[in-house]
Amino acid sequence: MSRDRRTRRISRRDKHPADPEATTIAKIAQPLNTLPPYELVNEEGIAKIHNASLEILSDVGIDFYDDEAQAILIQHGVRMQGDTAFFDREMIAEYVTKAPSQFTQLARNPERNVVIGGKHVCFAPVYGPPFVVNLDRGRREATLEDFRNFVKLTYQSEWLHHSGGTIVEPTDEPTHTRHLDMVYSHIKYSDKPFMGSVTSANNAADSVKMAEIVFGSEAMAEQPALLSLINISSPRRLDDRMLGALKVYAKARQALIITPFLFSGAMAPVGVAGTLVQLNAEALAGIVFSQMVNPGTPVVYGAFQTNIDLQSGAPVFGSPESQLALYTAAQLARKHKLPFRSGGMFASSKIADAQAAYESVMVMLPTVQAGVNFVLHAAGWLEGGLAAGYEKFVLDNELLGMFHKFMKGLDLSENGMAMESLRTVPTDGHHLGTPHTMQNFRQAFHRSTFFDYNSFEQWRDEGGITATEKANGRYKTLLRQYQPPSLDPAVDEALLAFMAKRKAEIKPEY
Amino acid sequence: MSRDRRTRRISRRDKHPADPEATTIAKIAQPLNTLPPYELVNEEGIAKIHNASLEILSDVGIDFYDDEAQAILIQHGVRMQGDTAFFDREMIAEYVTKAPSQFTQLARNPERNVVIGGKHVCFAPVYGPPFVVNLDRGRREATLEDFRNFVKLTYQSEWLHHSGGTIVEPTDEPTHTRHLDMVYSHIKYSDKPFMGSVTSANNAADSVKMAEIVFGSEAMAEQPALLSLINISSPRRLDDRMLGALKVYAKARQALIITPFLFSGAMAPVGVAGTLVQLNAEALAGIVFSQMVNPGTPVVYGAFQTNIDLQSGAPVFGSPESQLALYTAAQLARKHKLPFRSGGMFASSKIADAQAAYESVMVMLPTVQAGVNFVLHAAGWLEGGLAAGYEKFVLDNELLGMFHKFMKGLDLSENGMAMESLRTVPTDGHHLGTPHTMQNFRQAFHRSTFFDYNSFEQWRDEGGITATEKANGRYKTLLRQYQPPSLDPAVDEALLAFMAKRKAEIKPEY
Repeated sequence: MSRDRRTRRISRRDKHPADPEATTIAKIAQPLNTLPPYELVNEEGIAKIHNASLEILSDVGIDFYDDEAQAILIQHGVRMQGDTAFFDREMIAEYVTKAPSQFTQLARNPERNVVIGGKHVCFAPVYGPPFVVNLDRGRREATLEDFRNFVKLTYQSEWLHHSGGTIVEPTDEPTHTRHLDMVYSHIKYSDKPFMGSVTSANNAADSVKMAEIVFGSEAMAEQPALLSLINISSPRRLDDRMLGALKVYAKARQALIITPFLFSGAMAPVGVAGTLVQLNAEALAGIVFSQMVNPGTPVVYGAFQTNIDLQSGAPVFGSPESQLALYTAAQLARKHKLPFRSGGMFASSKIADAQAAYESVMVMLPTVQAGVNFVLHAAGWLEGGLAAGYEKFVLDNELLGMFHKFMKGLDLSENGMAMESLRTVPTDGHHLGTPHTMQNFRQAFHRSTFFDYNSFEQWRDEGGITATEKANGRYKTLLRQYQPPSLDPAVDEALLAFMAKRKAEIKPEY
Repeated sequence: MSRDRRTRRISRRDKHPADPEATTIAKIAQPLNTLPPYELVNEEGIAKIHNASLEILSDVGIDFYDDEAQAILIQHGVRMQGDTAFFDREMIAEYVTKAPSQFTQLARNPERNVVIGGKHVCFAPVYGPPFVVNLDRGRREATLEDFRNFVKLTYQSEWLHHSGGTIVEPTDEPTHTRHLDMVYSHIKYSDKPFMGSVTSANNAADSVKMAEIVFGSEAMAEQPALLSLINISSPRRLDDRMLGALKVYAKARQALIITPFLFSGAMAPVGVAGTLVQLNAEALAGIVFSQMVNPGTPVVYGAFQTNIDLQSGAPVFGSPESQLALYTAAQLARKHKLPFRSGGMFASSKIADAQAAYESVMVMLPTVQAGVNFVLHAAGWLEGGLAAGYEKFVLDNELLGMFHKFMKGLDLSENGMAMESLRTVPTDGHHLGTPHTMQNFRQAFHRSTFFDYNSFEQWRDEGGITATEKANGRYKTLLRQYQPPSLDPAVDEALLAFMAKRKAEIKPEY
């Protein structure tokens, strides 16, 4: 061993003398979901919903609040009446097929490139909360430090393949420049793929420019380095900010997720089927428009839907209605042969308690069984998306590990069938220590290293704490152990210079 | 209003002056699961497992440790070698078809009769824990009072259709007579269907006699009043106690659940497919034997399977492997055209925390999507089945309500599609208050009356408590509000007299 290597090892160990484990950095590749997708509705039912959506698109129309967008629509033969666009059935079919059914998003570490579509699954953290919550301080406004913390925790996760986007809103940074800090943090503290800003055309352009510093514009013309979330302002409306961002990304051939954001009973009907009619119409309008801007732009069919509580008006997460909608939306996406985004570890609960956990799996298990390709909000979501929970993040992450194993399906090989063991273990015997067990014990079962499987006595003697209390310790350990991925200093300097320039230029919008 | 009625109303109100709600007694009928069952494995895979099971049954054999059972097997053409029975393929097919694919179990309130099989779903509480746990006193040995409490809570649940069996072990009662107290408590404190004792032939006979006092032996010959749980002593063994109980119930034509109890890695191979080969062979052996004792005896194909943690040896609940096994076992039961029992709200966690909640839904949602007919352990299970949790019971019960709605599937009717609303609500409008919403708002969404959907501020101002803390209050309120169903005093006296006689007769076995 060279002196340098030994020194480095010792100094690393000295830095974290109390840490029992080495830093964990994603070792597991993006999984394939080998499970057959769950078909909730028969073909006839899916056709019924789709045909109703086509009726909405051709007869009721979708509003586009952007002059250039309207010009592009007219140029491609869309009938416009005021701000409202009417799409013919044939036009929808023609432009939807221009979008690829699968694409690769670049990561600055090529080993972490992700495939979006087909049987591939990509998990990303929560997106959008203005608050964070932990056991120590309760709920408070999120800061840039929180944002960085979640980027670091995501980077360290074996089960999250994507760094996400606005993991939390860094409310201590000015609104008009915080997109720069977010994009920079994703690049600096992680080497996983990430999302661009969608709050305006200019912010999207900044995201593209920062990505170009890292990836180069040539590589980005071949494969997208940004995947960005365009929400429809339901009912049936694309606003100027989202359209501005959409156009920037589509022109740069960067990937888009077009997501109607629907609460049944508010911006959609209380009928779940009706909500899906609307969702499908809105998503298709956005997707078709993206292909008119730049045919072949990678685009994901998105579905964010649940219902409101009709007594309080609050959205309800983990509801049985949202599961039905999720499964059906996935079937619609498959019909369109498009990558699909939906689901996540959704919860209405304010804290990482039993309610939050029940709610999260009530959505996440259908997410997996529906065959969702890109799962935003796969860790950390609380309070209907208003808060990101540190402990919740750790707990959700454990479930993601389990889903990786679940998605492998049933092994029906000779080894999986274990007939030799079945023939030879006697009726007063057991399978501990059989040759088959000894050959398979390491990979036979997924093992959470976090959940408690000890005896009651051992659990009690170790403090008798809840999983949430344990998660509090775990996330702090992870942040202490965090070590950044290397970043070319020239790239870092260029990014910092670009940010400094932009921060001097950008004026607050309001 | 007559004076009597008014008096009664006032006196009832006075009894519970502090109770905000009236006593809730199951109002909702047993649900139909309209969801298509999830087909994890293709037909070829199911045939492969079944054929391997037939090989085990014909070549490796199943042990029956009971002389009369062996005589019955020989009489029906089974090859015996020592205690080991070898079943031919044709014999399995012949006797499995003698069992009904669906049957009705009587409740002493006929409105609460349950159908077991087909698309019908029946939820029953946890079975077997020697301990109880609540927030006030932690974990302690269960008593007869705890048993009664859980019977009462089950009776009050809208979502539990069955009173279950050994909800907890009443450890303060002598082992040799506690079966009498349990059967009596089910009859006295509930009018839902219940399970008989299986700890010996005599205890089974006592259960039958007590049921006969309530239902009459004629009615019980037509339709079973008892449904009892026969576990296989895996690997490949039926012991004398279980066989004794099985014979008593089958001769009295009372329903049976034949359940191999399998932990992959211990009494079954680490391969999930191999575990299923064994499970299917063992279940079929028990089912075929029951049809040899009395053809046409209602029998449920049972599957209790998960894996052990190969590091600690402890069983793991909520594992991804157990989900794969559950889905596949359900497919095997459908192939056999038998009612199916599996799943439940399983958890390894010691307390009703986030871990317990995650684990529970990880099993319970597949339980529903697999199309399980009889779900034991649908509420209250903790610590790998060693403890019944009071708060866990309340929390699980909320999920059961959600599953009732989920099982209704997607409503694709004209009302569900809501096209008129979709056509008329403008792009700056919303669906609150539309005629469609007003017509549907009461039944559009399932609403948990327990989970918190309030704003953060409201939740905080109301104490900022966890769902588990809230459940602690809920179960106490329910027990305070409990009012027993009426029971014919003559029947009650006869039951008490029978119990007194038997308690004087029965000698401790050891």
